[in-house]
Amino acid sequence: MKTDIPALMRARRLDAIVVRGNTDTSTDLAYLVGGVKLENALYLQKADSPPLLVASPIERDTAASTGYRMRLWSDYDLIEYTKRHHNDRFRAAVAILSDLLRDEGVSGRVGFYGLADQGYSYIFLQALAAANPHIEVVGEPYPNLFQVARQTKDAQELAVMRRVGERTGRLLDSVFDFLTGQRARNGVLVHADGRPVTVGDVKEHIRLEMARLNLAEAHENIFAPGREGAVPHNTGTHERPLRLGETIVFDVFPYDPATGYFHDVTRTFFLGYAPDPLAERWQQVKTVFDRVLAELRIGERCARYQELVCDAFESLGYPTLRQDPKTQRGYVHSLGHGLGLDIHEPPALNLMPDNDTVFVPGHVFSVEPGLYEPDTPPDGGPGGWAIRLEDTVAFDHDGHLVNLTAYPCPMVIPVRELSG
Amino acid sequence: MKTDIPALMRARRLDAIVVRGNTDTSTDLAYLVGGVKLENALYLQKADSPPLLVASPIERDTAASTGYRMRLWSDYDLIEYTKRHHNDRFRAAVAILSDLLRDEGVSGRVGFYGLADQGYSYIFLQALAAANPHIEVVGEPYPNLFQVARQTKDAQELAVMRRVGERTGRLLDSVFDFLTGQRARNGVLVHADGRPVTVGDVKEHIRLEMARLNLAEAHENIFAPGREGAVPHNTGTHERPLRLGETIVFDVFPYDPATGYFHDVTRTFFLGYAPDPLAERWQQVKTVFDRVLAELRIGERCARYQELVCDAFESLGYPTLRQDPKTQRGYVHSLGHGLGLDIHEPPALNLMPDNDTVFVPGHVFSVEPGLYEPDTPPDGGPGGWAIRLEDTVAFDHDGHLVNLTAYPCPMVIPVRELSG
Repeated sequence: MKTDIPALMRARRLDAIVVRGNTDTSTDLAYLVGGVKLENALYLQKADSPPLLVASPIERDTAASTGYRMRLWSDYDLIEYTKRHHNDRFRAAVAILSDLLRDEGVSGRVGFYGLADQGYSYIFLQALAAANPHIEVVGEPYPNLFQVARQTKDAQELAVMRRVGERTGRLLDSVFDFLTGQRARNGVLVHADGRPVTVGDVKEHIRLEMARLNLAEAHENIFAPGREGAVPHNTGTHERPLRLGETIVFDVFPYDPATGYFHDVTRTFFLGYAPDPLAERWQQVKTVFDRVLAELRIGERCARYQELVCDAFESLGYPTLRQDPKTQRGYVHSLGHGLGLDIHEPPALNLMPDNDTVFVPGHVFSVEPGLYEPDTPPDGGPGGWAIRLEDTVAFDHDGHLVNLTAYPCPMVIPVRELSG
Repeated sequence: MKTDIPALMRARRLDAIVVRGNTDTSTDLAYLVGGVKLENALYLQKADSPPLLVASPIERDTAASTGYRMRLWSDYDLIEYTKRHHNDRFRAAVAILSDLLRDEGVSGRVGFYGLADQGYSYIFLQALAAANPHIEVVGEPYPNLFQVARQTKDAQELAVMRRVGERTGRLLDSVFDFLTGQRARNGVLVHADGRPVTVGDVKEHIRLEMARLNLAEAHENIFAPGREGAVPHNTGTHERPLRLGETIVFDVFPYDPATGYFHDVTRTFFLGYAPDPLAERWQQVKTVFDRVLAELRIGERCARYQELVCDAFESLGYPTLRQDPKTQRGYVHSLGHGLGLDIHEPPALNLMPDNDTVFVPGHVFSVEPGLYEPDTPPDGGPGGWAIRLEDTVAFDHDGHLVNLTAYPCPMVIPVRELSG
């Protein structure tokens, strides 16, 4: 949580932190400024001092709305600095930050955060360190201060994420209504004029409905029938007609444009009917999914639930990444990920050997077991299918598990068949 | 252009380049993979060799669609590497990239690109350099290889950006239709039930219309009446009713979700009527805008046009940043910016002392002179207004200037007044 930052600075022996960037890409900065948009801002916090926000004059009203003490980049005019540094903009940029840190009385260990070009960051922070012998430039490995702070959400963040979940539920309602409103002929969903209903038609409906619900997406949702779903990040070919009796993986991860917080949900279903061998597999995933949701506990290791799911799928005869890190069949990913201002952030429900995270109040994460079969399996069973079920859940500050998705898991979406 | 990359590598004496990241944030990576979404990919290009794309197994179909030679991260399993490195994930990550570079026969000067946490990049590339004495880790100051390559668009990119401009024009049509469809009472736009039409109502219309046109936005558009527009990046208060006779700055910068390319356009207009002193100022901006558009030439310095605009506004008595780097009145920004996969990228139409860019075919950029008056000006004239006009233009590969916006500049949007 944001209120953990001073303690995290002490634990990491940081005398100051600097977070710089564009809030569109640097979610650590977006986190600190509370969702407003700033294109080129710098947040400076010294231990035991109120933070400073440095902003562009053309964003001064937005910056002021954060309530932080504010300075403007026009105090350190890049044109003047560049002239003074023989037209070398890089040296000017180093000098500006050096002067700002000096003017703000910064010394000691200073952590740097926010997204920037990797190569530029490397030479810029080297030059900054060289120019400021009283400063130790600190970069942090995973998990850095913000990865730790942000993985537990405060009550206000939980309330925002709950509302995003509710709106996402309305989106799912609308998509399922759209599908049940269609008719099928010869096993293919068709429009009134007989043209097939395609993945692209569904995606268009999703796009319009997201706008109505004031939800946005950072990249395209997944609506992947049959074999297409069997590579987990395939989004689905727009031209593909929707057929009855196929698995359809529908994974959507909208965010609220006003606050930036994400939701993440997956449903896998069949249009019309579920063929027996696939219905059985769907039920296997559903059983594991329900079991994980029922067993999640504060104080338990995140990794334990990935073990549990690997145990369950392996006992059913499916390969898992735990058995074979190269498998592309069976259970091919981890059980879940934290989410917030990023769609993927800590905690991780995986088997990384350094994953000693235990669940605590404020954790918000996905639970998403899945099975994948891109080809004909060795036992000669059905191939070209995928089943993943996913909810976003949270531990609130009373220690209760709250399902932010709270949406049914239909296996079959009924559609009316037209004769002939 | 993409085809310039080998020559740019030679000119910068780079034996290889590495671009790593998530295509949602790392537009250099998005540029190389042609708009598909990859969450954790690495692009490696050695001089005079075909590129390699390393992707996650769960994104292998997407990665394969790029046509690049492909490897999967499962060849360098992070869990196994982390175990081998005493559960130190950072050392494991350095070892993985070291092994990959060794396996691909990379040595010499290697440039690193793509967005990542600044502090992490600093320690990661230091550790990589220390572990690979045969490699010189290169970070580049502005403008780096990609900033140079991407600032000239090829014919295919120009065609895409032209289409985004056309759809943005349809968005403007729809917004102006929405406004002219309203009625005014006592100088305020009102709904049929008498409630005022607000900035938020317009923004909702924009959101729905963008979805219909398959356009998206990275952050909120600007629809800023009166004084709100006078700080250029204010987006407009949603609750604010729309009044006749005020300046309204409408700046919208949608991108095409399929390709990621942006458009950028601003219109400033008055609802109902333009009060005389503001109509005169609107015309001053329009005259400067038209003059710049008429004088743009291949081979001319970008900076020259900012000089021209400063000359014009100063001769009319307005302060400019050239005269006073701290002014918050008058002309308070540069004339324009390149755009493409980022909303702001080179070329820059500004007076940075290192700006020696001359216009060449393939440049796509905004032209956006503006005047701003947040307070009552010293001469006692009207305060609390802003006027900015902006088109996105391109030099095509025949050397012709093409206006990608090609949209009228209405000063007054007529609305019907209801009596009483």
